[in-house]
Amino acid sequence: MAESFVLKGNICYSMERDELLVREHSYVICENGVCGGVYPSLPEDFRWMECVDYGDRLIIPGFTDLHVHAPQYAFRGLGMDLELLEWLEEHAFVEEQKYADLAYAKKAYEIFTEDLVKSATTRACIFGTIHTEATLLLMDMLEKTGIKAFVGRVNMDRNCPEGLCEAGWGKAAQDTEMWLERCCGFKNVRPILTPRFIPACSDGLMRGLSELQKRCHLPVQSHLSENREEIAWVKELCPEVENYGAAYDRYGMFGEEYPAIMAHCVHSGEEEMELMERRKVFVAHCPESNANLSSGVAPVRAFLNRGIKVGLGSDIAAGSGLSMFRAMALAVQCSKLKWRLEDGALEPLKFSEVFYMATKGGGEFFGNVGSFEKGFAFDALVIDDGDMRSPQKLSVQQRLERLAYLAEDKHIAAKYVGGRKIFGIS
Amino acid sequence: MAESFVLKGNICYSMERDELLVREHSYVICENGVCGGVYPSLPEDFRWMECVDYGDRLIIPGFTDLHVHAPQYAFRGLGMDLELLEWLEEHAFVEEQKYADLAYAKKAYEIFTEDLVKSATTRACIFGTIHTEATLLLMDMLEKTGIKAFVGRVNMDRNCPEGLCEAGWGKAAQDTEMWLERCCGFKNVRPILTPRFIPACSDGLMRGLSELQKRCHLPVQSHLSENREEIAWVKELCPEVENYGAAYDRYGMFGEEYPAIMAHCVHSGEEEMELMERRKVFVAHCPESNANLSSGVAPVRAFLNRGIKVGLGSDIAAGSGLSMFRAMALAVQCSKLKWRLEDGALEPLKFSEVFYMATKGGGEFFGNVGSFEKGFAFDALVIDDGDMRSPQKLSVQQRLERLAYLAEDKHIAAKYVGGRKIFGIS
Repeated sequence: MAESFVLKGNICYSMERDELLVREHSYVICENGVCGGVYPSLPEDFRWMECVDYGDRLIIPGFTDLHVHAPQYAFRGLGMDLELLEWLEEHAFVEEQKYADLAYAKKAYEIFTEDLVKSATTRACIFGTIHTEATLLLMDMLEKTGIKAFVGRVNMDRNCPEGLCEAGWGKAAQDTEMWLERCCGFKNVRPILTPRFIPACSDGLMRGLSELQKRCHLPVQSHLSENREEIAWVKELCPEVENYGAAYDRYGMFGEEYPAIMAHCVHSGEEEMELMERRKVFVAHCPESNANLSSGVAPVRAFLNRGIKVGLGSDIAAGSGLSMFRAMALAVQCSKLKWRLEDGALEPLKFSEVFYMATKGGGEFFGNVGSFEKGFAFDALVIDDGDMRSPQKLSVQQRLERLAYLAEDKHIAAKYVGGRKIFGIS
Repeated sequence: MAESFVLKGNICYSMERDELLVREHSYVICENGVCGGVYPSLPEDFRWMECVDYGDRLIIPGFTDLHVHAPQYAFRGLGMDLELLEWLEEHAFVEEQKYADLAYAKKAYEIFTEDLVKSATTRACIFGTIHTEATLLLMDMLEKTGIKAFVGRVNMDRNCPEGLCEAGWGKAAQDTEMWLERCCGFKNVRPILTPRFIPACSDGLMRGLSELQKRCHLPVQSHLSENREEIAWVKELCPEVENYGAAYDRYGMFGEEYPAIMAHCVHSGEEEMELMERRKVFVAHCPESNANLSSGVAPVRAFLNRGIKVGLGSDIAAGSGLSMFRAMALAVQCSKLKWRLEDGALEPLKFSEVFYMATKGGGEFFGNVGSFEKGFAFDALVIDDGDMRSPQKLSVQQRLERLAYLAEDKHIAAKYVGGRKIFGIS
């Protein structure tokens, strides 16, 4: 149950893209799960509420992981020797077939879910597999944690191994519909359409999903322009479209009416970006994944210049870990290498910008999420960096920047989602 | 005191550059601090020794951090918004001046030393500051931990702030000699000549240090070709030399007779590499630092192709943390980005290669260090990855690779240096 309470501590959050607000020893209000604002002293109206004083700790909005493959958590940190298409064949597809076995799925998803609870992630957009039962099991487990998530039963019906290939697009759309019917009971977890990527989805499947989307008003998540070989393959498969993004767009699955997350966008050109901008696509920027699979570095500065929405993704298991802190650090580091090695016109990302992406940028996919502005969902992390000692007196902003590089799960002292405490000290 | 004992566990180590030896449930021998080899079953000769059974844990050689600035630990993870020369002015030089105050140095070096003990580093090559007393204090603290280290009192007499500038090269060389005399009592810690970098060292200073080196037979550590602006500056300061490396070489401080570590080498060209190869220079490759300061990515593949010696460095505080595990992961990731974005001829580094660099590659600077070959110093880490759960049965090699991406200090169950247990479970 969402409650009403007050937290006191060093509060940091963003309202705008390159702004970081720091309110030392201040109060943030939670009224029935919704943020009531930040105050330097506690207003009369809220004095009846319980106030938890977190002392010198930091209080920041929770992070949204905009792109993560739950079944791949089983091989995180492994097999980093291949590029995308071979990596899918040899690692991802091999593992995902195992989720036909519900006992295996239970064992695997228990580990994923428990580790997600301990992480800094409060909301996530998650890929499952093509297996309805395993995906429902994952949703059920997530539901109980209190974490809010979009979860997708994956659709794929071509160019994939037999054990991971839906039996014809008609059956695929039908199975997806049956899965959707069984998602009604969830509150924290919601379904999202999840065509894997164009190379694995036939035109028939895309059409079927598109009809389903119109009937059920569902958002969509997929992959876009991650790898040059992949892009060439899409061009071959869909010679009639102008760019990879347009291959989703012709089915209405590229934002606008129904929100869309596109992971990666490493090689999106001007034309594709123009479409992303127009359709208000959310980019899930996954810097570690893009380094690990030698994909490159997404032109995030160009996205921001156009006003394209950008959040961060861990992209387990092409990314190795769930840490959104680390995703922030890597987003800055990779943007510097892109600027230095590839394109001097794309200025490196600043800490304030990646902090915005990890909080409000990705949070926006869930609505008013990722900030301590009035009316936003009350997702919060309490961070205890007491063991990161320094002989200097550091400012709160410095302590926050340092966390991007050095935070581990142990530094998360408490975690709240929609006003509900998921874990932590009191 | 170094002892004789046997450890049992899953043993991983390297002998050659791209070879990873895995010996499951095997025995590694320590005889008076020296490795007596690895055996699948315990030979008669060693049955009298105490045997510690570490069960399913991994046992690997300790890591050598080939380049770390102890005084900069105070601002790790901060101020990542500048390139090298501005970063030195605004962050590094400002902090380092504080070490004139011995009380501050004590506070700062206590934190550094305690965190180094908890880390995976068993040996390190460390920069102090120009301050003799503070540097001796650091050496004294390190000596007591049992970690083995080369520590340098830094020399710099030009192009640096007044508070961090030695008063003339004669005095600098004299002070360095006096510092050396006071280093005699140390066993674990040894002095190393440490001219900061060419822009901060006058010709007179370099000459003075060179004479000192010849008299005292000292190794040397410095910086090389990190940043383009820096390189242009060196060209301006030393118009007569063919490359940056040659500016050290003309004073005999570029390897060969006295071993030399050169940190970074991001922009070393063919000519400089040729000299590095000939002089047997050790490269301290610091991938995180080179990303954080937008320096670029060192051509490590080219170094390896020439047989140039390469180890890894954390380069605190341009690198954010002490983790050599993370340095391994970043070395692989950055090599992939260099290959993808800049030079398709330089094949990405493999895990086995960066593991070699972190162990035997950097360890070689200390002699027979960084492997479990017979006769090598017994430096070992016992790693407990029990909390990194997976529904799959992973091989020992997979578990080791995963650690590069995900290990934290808490995973180090025990640490031995030269046969002495620094900390850990028994």
